[in-house]
Amino acid sequence: MDEQAPAPSAVERLALAIEYDGSAFSGWQRLTRAGEEGARPERTVQEVVEQALGFVAGQPVATVCAGRTDAGVHARAQVIHFDAPVRREPRGWVLGTTTRLPPEVCVRWCVPVAADFHARFSARARRYRYRLVNRPVRPALMREYLSWERRPLDADAMHRAAQALLGENDFSAFRTVHCQAPHARRNLHEISVRRDGEIVDVEVQANAFLHHQVRNIVGSLLVVGRGEKPEGWIAELLAGRDRTVAGPTAPPNGLMFLRPLYPADCGLPAEVTLSGPAPGPAAPEDD
Amino acid sequence: MDEQAPAPSAVERLALAIEYDGSAFSGWQRLTRAGEEGARPERTVQEVVEQALGFVAGQPVATVCAGRTDAGVHARAQVIHFDAPVRREPRGWVLGTTTRLPPEVCVRWCVPVAADFHARFSARARRYRYRLVNRPVRPALMREYLSWERRPLDADAMHRAAQALLGENDFSAFRTVHCQAPHARRNLHEISVRRDGEIVDVEVQANAFLHHQVRNIVGSLLVVGRGEKPEGWIAELLAGRDRTVAGPTAPPNGLMFLRPLYPADCGLPAEVTLSGPAPGPAAPEDD
Repeated sequence: MDEQAPAPSAVERLALAIEYDGSAFSGWQRLTRAGEEGARPERTVQEVVEQALGFVAGQPVATVCAGRTDAGVHARAQVIHFDAPVRREPRGWVLGTTTRLPPEVCVRWCVPVAADFHARFSARARRYRYRLVNRPVRPALMREYLSWERRPLDADAMHRAAQALLGENDFSAFRTVHCQAPHARRNLHEISVRRDGEIVDVEVQANAFLHHQVRNIVGSLLVVGRGEKPEGWIAELLAGRDRTVAGPTAPPNGLMFLRPLYPADCGLPAEVTLSGPAPGPAAPEDD
Repeated sequence: MDEQAPAPSAVERLALAIEYDGSAFSGWQRLTRAGEEGARPERTVQEVVEQALGFVAGQPVATVCAGRTDAGVHARAQVIHFDAPVRREPRGWVLGTTTRLPPEVCVRWCVPVAADFHARFSARARRYRYRLVNRPVRPALMREYLSWERRPLDADAMHRAAQALLGENDFSAFRTVHCQAPHARRNLHEISVRRDGEIVDVEVQANAFLHHQVRNIVGSLLVVGRGEKPEGWIAELLAGRDRTVAGPTAPPNGLMFLRPLYPADCGLPAEVTLSGPAPGPAAPEDD
């Protein structure tokens, strides 16, 4: 993609932040449709973003993202990179591309980066938030961005239980059987569970996540929050490494990819830049 | 449901809080469609609520609301009352009715009230919030619940300017020409403009509001926020009582009817109950 014929100086690597409402998409990643004839055509965020960027660029572009999200999962700042075949002002990429995107997707910012910047491999951490509304009746407002738990949750107990997950661990107990990562070790930097009225937020940061890891952690924390298992159960699950005894996978619509985090020398906006020293090595090849 | 031929004591006045996403509706109020042949059939929140309540009641019911909302305007706690023709547990009304409602609407709670309680006339105040995202690019997330202003806003200047509206005033400058209220005097209890990152919230409480009053106030505050008029302009507009010189009406989707407020002796949940003495006389006949 980098060189069709343009002079080397015309190629420039750009990082962009993409915001999207995942409700209308089958996830981030562009699908290969071989053998899927007859299936309902599914739209991915990557497809619509690459189409819009390609329109502005005047030729096809291929993007790499910081963290693939599943169907129905949202993103506040999904960072991508691509090699721009033409020179434009960052503002032109932001506004021109957004004009070509459906209402569920926009480009929040665009920054030129070094040629060796990589949206996935340069990221040192990812932050997700899982938001629930905890009340007897389903939500009408914000329902696309909320999961619903009708039984009363003890958010403090969930918070305490979750602290057992901190650090470098084998997260096999919270990994979907479809996960293709070569191993299940991830470094969980931070996890919190907080209540604000009817809203319960689980916020979590790790160097990288396994497939369904956040939703599986939340599913097990809900079991503790409802009082069906003691707080120590989360530590037991982690140690046991057995997915089949953990809680169910929480539904996708409560999940938001808040942002990846990069070292300061990448030169990205503050919201995706680590404020202190990097909390660990670069992300593994999978995320 | 329990009694086929109810004794008089079976009639009970109930107050309910309705939450709705106004995006899919042409407003609260049931429409009369005379002379509207050929027009796109429009759905109102009142219609779907009365249909659902009527199903649970086993016969048609008519509701009265605390504050009519326009097309596209949301509500967190629209309070209504109606006379239930059958006795049921409040929980039954909440869950049974919500089951019959479309995803955009739910019943949050139901409380038996005195026979002279009136959702509109008993309310001493209404609170609205207008939420904007202030950044160069349109929002993708939460876009149904946000208005968008691309030019930088000085929220502090808007806040100071807005304080000129406090108290009992003639709000003719902020009233749509279609407003049918007999006079334009309203008592504005509180107004604040606050920024949190890209989000700017205007929150306002009054005894009652004229048609489009909040959106017209916000439209003029935006002119000040962009620096196109000085802070004192809002006071001038109020004094001039001339709608034609004020700012444009802000779009509906940023507007949320947070809640009405009732005296404590109505026995309603805390979120819709005045914490101190009533801030003024009952609402006028219009709202």
